[in-house]
Amino acid sequence: MMSQTAAVTEARPAAVVAAARRRIAAAQRALLLTHVAPDGDAIGSLLGLGLALRAAGKTVSLACADPVPDMFEFLPAAGEIARAFSGEFDLIVALDAADPGRLGALGEALPRPPDLLFDHHLTNPGYADLNLIDVSAASTAELIVEHLPALGLPLTRPAAECLLAGIITDTLGFRTANTTAKTLALAQQLMAAGASLPEVYDKAFYKRSFAAVRLWAEGLARIQLEDRLVWTELTLEARRAARYYGQGDADLINVLTSVREADIAVIFVERNDGKVKISWRAAPGFNVAALAAAFGGGGHAPAAGAEVAGSLDEVKTRVLKATRELLAADHP
Amino acid sequence: MMSQTAAVTEARPAAVVAAARRRIAAAQRALLLTHVAPDGDAIGSLLGLGLALRAAGKTVSLACADPVPDMFEFLPAAGEIARAFSGEFDLIVALDAADPGRLGALGEALPRPPDLLFDHHLTNPGYADLNLIDVSAASTAELIVEHLPALGLPLTRPAAECLLAGIITDTLGFRTANTTAKTLALAQQLMAAGASLPEVYDKAFYKRSFAAVRLWAEGLARIQLEDRLVWTELTLEARRAARYYGQGDADLINVLTSVREADIAVIFVERNDGKVKISWRAAPGFNVAALAAAFGGGGHAPAAGAEVAGSLDEVKTRVLKATRELLAADHP
Repeated sequence: MMSQTAAVTEARPAAVVAAARRRIAAAQRALLLTHVAPDGDAIGSLLGLGLALRAAGKTVSLACADPVPDMFEFLPAAGEIARAFSGEFDLIVALDAADPGRLGALGEALPRPPDLLFDHHLTNPGYADLNLIDVSAASTAELIVEHLPALGLPLTRPAAECLLAGIITDTLGFRTANTTAKTLALAQQLMAAGASLPEVYDKAFYKRSFAAVRLWAEGLARIQLEDRLVWTELTLEARRAARYYGQGDADLINVLTSVREADIAVIFVERNDGKVKISWRAAPGFNVAALAAAFGGGGHAPAAGAEVAGSLDEVKTRVLKATRELLAADHP
Repeated sequence: MMSQTAAVTEARPAAVVAAARRRIAAAQRALLLTHVAPDGDAIGSLLGLGLALRAAGKTVSLACADPVPDMFEFLPAAGEIARAFSGEFDLIVALDAADPGRLGALGEALPRPPDLLFDHHLTNPGYADLNLIDVSAASTAELIVEHLPALGLPLTRPAAECLLAGIITDTLGFRTANTTAKTLALAQQLMAAGASLPEVYDKAFYKRSFAAVRLWAEGLARIQLEDRLVWTELTLEARRAARYYGQGDADLINVLTSVREADIAVIFVERNDGKVKISWRAAPGFNVAALAAAFGGGGHAPAAGAEVAGSLDEVKTRVLKATRELLAADHP
């Protein structure tokens, strides 16, 4: 059934949307799930569709296996997102999750595959009964906004705020290469529904903690540029000095990708489990996904990551060597 | 005549636009000017309107008293912007310049006040014959895009790229409080005319030199937060260490304003003329313009600046004291 439905998705998306509309109209108790390590599109899509369903009279449960990041807690109903679910549901919806594994433990606990799936990831196999997948959408939130009317769902102001957060964060503030005129048109619809672009932009994307900026200071103090490769490292000591207790690099990678003289940016994050987390970002024409895969990780051509066991210096030496080879091979 | 025309601007903008359309239709040789220390809106508006006029068959000269910043050199016709002008013109247009003094030496050299003015600054007195001033526009470029059809001018792809650069840079990437649904709608029109949002965004706003990022590192190494005030300094030594030879702070102020725990951000830039350049940014509810004025500078409530003679330490002490008093007074 899955492959049949997936075929319908590709050949006749309007038929899938119509079927989804009927399924939603008939449903009373909905469970919505999004992926582990949720980003702004995961949370924004989950809350946006959830609030639209609730405005249409459905009982809605929201769940994510991981906690909601601090900067999204201002969104309406963010506090309702649970780490687990219980009960019976006549509509199960997966959001922004490229494969069932991305739902984490929640996916394993489902009584059946999701009834409905909204996603924009290229690699999504279409694991739900009805799959609304559009890889041309710059975010899953964008895809939802576009289809709300056809799905018979209202766009309320709270839903609009959540969906706008999804669009802004997944396009890095309307900056990514997949941001289209349609993206802007849909963002306008959300503003017309009452969402404040400046407010959502500030809270969901722009504002960061002082500790995060201090972590930037630590990372930028060690930044290096050589032959169109820019990189830096964040040691455990730097994390302590900055008093930054979050995971990852506090989006410092976005500062590195802004360096005009570089085609590839890399950040090495030392962890306390003996591994080093590596993030790559590449300009168009370079594919860092293959590089990440060679180190046991994955991702997309322009953005990929991996976790490698070893000391920071040892991992850095190996990874920088391989990255330099990619740079030389792709642009000899 | 000026005050009469200004009154017309306010009372019947459509009449001013109609008069501007006739003036443009009758013109053959146009001179377009923008303000000193040009930003993206100054350059984008100048080039955008200039290229539209040229596409309509006019002979167009473009001038600015100061050089075009590096990041805008990719824009079509940017190389044609001259530091001076000569010849006879039957249409003189001023862009994004809040008062005639902002045109610098070029303003003094004009044979008459500008025939036409496009601006969005609140303080603009309307010093041209026909004044198209809209303080609700988030950029002068936005105002131009909106009025191009009524002015009888075509929107070509090169013009669209320049105007999009103006919109993106003046809204700090669609982030400022004055970014509206109309802003997004007009950006869409520019994309429909062939401008690439991701490309223009990257080149005009996002990408910066490695030296600029190294200057950030120097500034962030000294960042301090105290009682909702965040500040840092950029010494001459830091500038040398970073090998950053540009003026100002390389937009480091935008990193400081991202600190969630602060309401006011200040940067002190040590200069080699015995002065210290100060930039303030404030959250809604605070007015740093009055503070800047007290130090001989100026600006708007949320963003202001001043140049103060004295050593870095001495100026810093005085300015931080006054800024703390403002913070305490506005939110006691």
